[in-house]
Amino acid sequence: MTLYVHLAQLLGERIEQGLYRPGDRLPSVRALSAEHGVSLSTVQQAYRVLEDNGLAAPRPKSGFFVAEGKALPELPAVSQATQRPVDISQWDQVVEMVREAPNKQMVALGRGMPDVSSPTLKPLLRSLARLSRRQDMPGLYYDTLQGNRALREQVARLQVDSGCRLSADDLLITAGCHEALSCSVRAICQPGDIVAVDSPSFFGSMQTLQGLGLKALEIPTDPLTGISVQALELALEQWPIKVIQLNPNCNNPFGYIMPEANKRALLTLAQRYDVAIIEDDVYGELAYDYPRPRTIKSFDSDGRVLLCSSFSKTLAPGLRIGWVAPGRYLERVAHMKYIGSGCTAPQAQLAIADFISAGHYDPHVRRMRHQYQQGRDEMTAWVRRYFPAGTRVSRPRGGFMLWLELPEHFDSVALNQALKGQNVQIAVGSIFSASGKYRNCLRMNFASRPTAQIEDAVRKVGQAAARLLESAAAG
Amino acid sequence: MTLYVHLAQLLGERIEQGLYRPGDRLPSVRALSAEHGVSLSTVQQAYRVLEDNGLAAPRPKSGFFVAEGKALPELPAVSQATQRPVDISQWDQVVEMVREAPNKQMVALGRGMPDVSSPTLKPLLRSLARLSRRQDMPGLYYDTLQGNRALREQVARLQVDSGCRLSADDLLITAGCHEALSCSVRAICQPGDIVAVDSPSFFGSMQTLQGLGLKALEIPTDPLTGISVQALELALEQWPIKVIQLNPNCNNPFGYIMPEANKRALLTLAQRYDVAIIEDDVYGELAYDYPRPRTIKSFDSDGRVLLCSSFSKTLAPGLRIGWVAPGRYLERVAHMKYIGSGCTAPQAQLAIADFISAGHYDPHVRRMRHQYQQGRDEMTAWVRRYFPAGTRVSRPRGGFMLWLELPEHFDSVALNQALKGQNVQIAVGSIFSASGKYRNCLRMNFASRPTAQIEDAVRKVGQAAARLLESAAAG
Repeated sequence: MTLYVHLAQLLGERIEQGLYRPGDRLPSVRALSAEHGVSLSTVQQAYRVLEDNGLAAPRPKSGFFVAEGKALPELPAVSQATQRPVDISQWDQVVEMVREAPNKQMVALGRGMPDVSSPTLKPLLRSLARLSRRQDMPGLYYDTLQGNRALREQVARLQVDSGCRLSADDLLITAGCHEALSCSVRAICQPGDIVAVDSPSFFGSMQTLQGLGLKALEIPTDPLTGISVQALELALEQWPIKVIQLNPNCNNPFGYIMPEANKRALLTLAQRYDVAIIEDDVYGELAYDYPRPRTIKSFDSDGRVLLCSSFSKTLAPGLRIGWVAPGRYLERVAHMKYIGSGCTAPQAQLAIADFISAGHYDPHVRRMRHQYQQGRDEMTAWVRRYFPAGTRVSRPRGGFMLWLELPEHFDSVALNQALKGQNVQIAVGSIFSASGKYRNCLRMNFASRPTAQIEDAVRKVGQAAARLLESAAAG
Repeated sequence: MTLYVHLAQLLGERIEQGLYRPGDRLPSVRALSAEHGVSLSTVQQAYRVLEDNGLAAPRPKSGFFVAEGKALPELPAVSQATQRPVDISQWDQVVEMVREAPNKQMVALGRGMPDVSSPTLKPLLRSLARLSRRQDMPGLYYDTLQGNRALREQVARLQVDSGCRLSADDLLITAGCHEALSCSVRAICQPGDIVAVDSPSFFGSMQTLQGLGLKALEIPTDPLTGISVQALELALEQWPIKVIQLNPNCNNPFGYIMPEANKRALLTLAQRYDVAIIEDDVYGELAYDYPRPRTIKSFDSDGRVLLCSSFSKTLAPGLRIGWVAPGRYLERVAHMKYIGSGCTAPQAQLAIADFISAGHYDPHVRRMRHQYQQGRDEMTAWVRRYFPAGTRVSRPRGGFMLWLELPEHFDSVALNQALKGQNVQIAVGSIFSASGKYRNCLRMNFASRPTAQIEDAVRKVGQAAARLLESAAAG
């Protein structure tokens, strides 16, 4: 853990323990620098983290104060390591979620759906309509296997913000990030291979490992800083790991951003043990802070990082447009793309390329980042209000997902059962683990602008959780 | 081989050998019935085949005559069996084709592209545009994993013509037939498994087998009747075949329609040896005769046939909408679909469902069938005119592909090289074989309405082929 994260945690704990009360003045930057023997800028970075987490607020010329009424719930625990690589199960729980027909009555808190109702998306829809009227009907033809060049050029341009220098030739367009991840892992692994993963981890990529007959080795992961580089090193020593698959920026489901030093350390490890890295950056553009965090790929010097992302979270998932920058594995990934689904549908690619090049992308994403940050605060407040005391809550620094941890014996599968007929649904925690851990956890979506209907849905979930805990205590 | 096909071949050979000349009267139905000891209806069926192949023409009340100036080139040879299952190669040749950027100057005779310029497609484009203007923006949301129900209902309805009784629940929408085939084979096979295939066979599904580490066992295939059921039986006795993958209707690249009796016999074999059948029907709707041929799936009583198709050849490939009816493998195929690319983009699904339910599909396909049949005749005539004498040519009964066989030492890869810079491209024969056979063959597309530009392109190919043959003879 870097110094500033460590310091931020220490201060955060003091605030949460009540040593500092809401409205209290916090120690000055200079005082903390002297007390902990760190530089002034380290302390400033630590305060920045506290600010992002809503714990501290700066006042002009007076330093930092504990945010009013903003003391946050406790964080989820650092995940425990599994002792060995495991086969992945949980498909039945995943399928229950992805089979569900869209239903306007249902508040689907479990889905990974962004808000697509923003007026800043209108130019994209106009572009889609315009393409359908074009005489040359580009949407009807096969595209090339790598995808539309204009779009690849725009993606390369956007990636400058993440520290990556890519060209159109380095990129392959896919049907969403899902296909990008799937092609990447298939390009590298054979059945029986071991993949090291952060934990909890996106259930879609877990299922991909399962479907390919791979084993997942879950590495302990911190809810603020991500995968433990130390634990990963031990694992690399002990097991013939083929690839490390992780989601370091605005992690799904934890919401953390892995510190840059950890990203560099992880890459160094990968080089030393000569393993590939599949980096899922699908939420990376939705970091609340500007500039957006760097990718591990941006430090990659020998092409071992396969960077996967899409427009599913930034624009809309129904477009099914993602991409991968597979580094040295480009040829193999292209083959996997070809045998999986052939080329990608051109019309949405062209519309997105138009949307970005006409300058609509940046204002849209800026707006969504702001909305999601507010959504996080609102959802966190609702959880405090409606969930059983002691519910632990993640502190996302980007994206639109909240991760909740209830007491160990709690069962989120039973919770979803109890919610049937109430038009609310959550994502059960167990699907985020290869080995079915996190049954006591759940994930909720705060992408939509807060409404009374959503608040009511969160209240229902909280009350149902409380009832389950009570009946467990009684039984 | 059924009696009528046998009889048709016999008569066809006599016509081609010059025993009957153009304009000659052919033996009466009654006379042939007596001569060959078959029923009157068998002879009538045989004449129907000759008629379809443009060899014979009926005159009212006078019987059948040899078509004027219509004597056809000789058929390609029945493909020879490989002795054993092989690993698949040829990716480098495939990638050359699928990497190519669309280019208006290029006459891409090699591609599997239908004609998408027909005015009967306009309502589909209008529907796509209209969807982009809808307030609820369905195109932006995740779909369910199985795909849009309205579209699945329409697909089930269309399949009645192929003899299949399917419901929406039996179907899964995919990103083109390519993904349908890929999910099907992944649902059933493990690396190292053996798949029996027709030969020549669609290069896309060949590459899928290769990418999954499967072995292909190529079964001898007749250019008029398809895969040899006898040879398949021998293979099933000898090898632990996991699945039979074939394209029985309007075969790519041969164009044959497998006789119904052979389809039934193949299914019986599959039942006896308990293997699955992956049936690629992507060109089935484009049979020139009405009603369209039945699928093997239509005879399937125990859910062992996975029927795969798409709208890529009937409407437009850029839509990337296909489907699979996986029978008893539905759950596994859904899992493979999920891990490959997640759900399919909804907008094109909705537009196609609109297009079919508004009654635009049938007239469009009828028109295209007619156009493609004329295209076949025109392309065959050009090949006779511009290719070296002795070039053997397939006689497609549907679709828009012609298969050409040149002398054994001919090299179609060298032909494509020679065509570079001439803005023409063909599909080399070797990619249609797991073991790189058919280097002396090539495939050409006749989907577009005949133009002087296309005729010129065919002339260039024929002349380049002649030059290659001459220089080989000289060297």
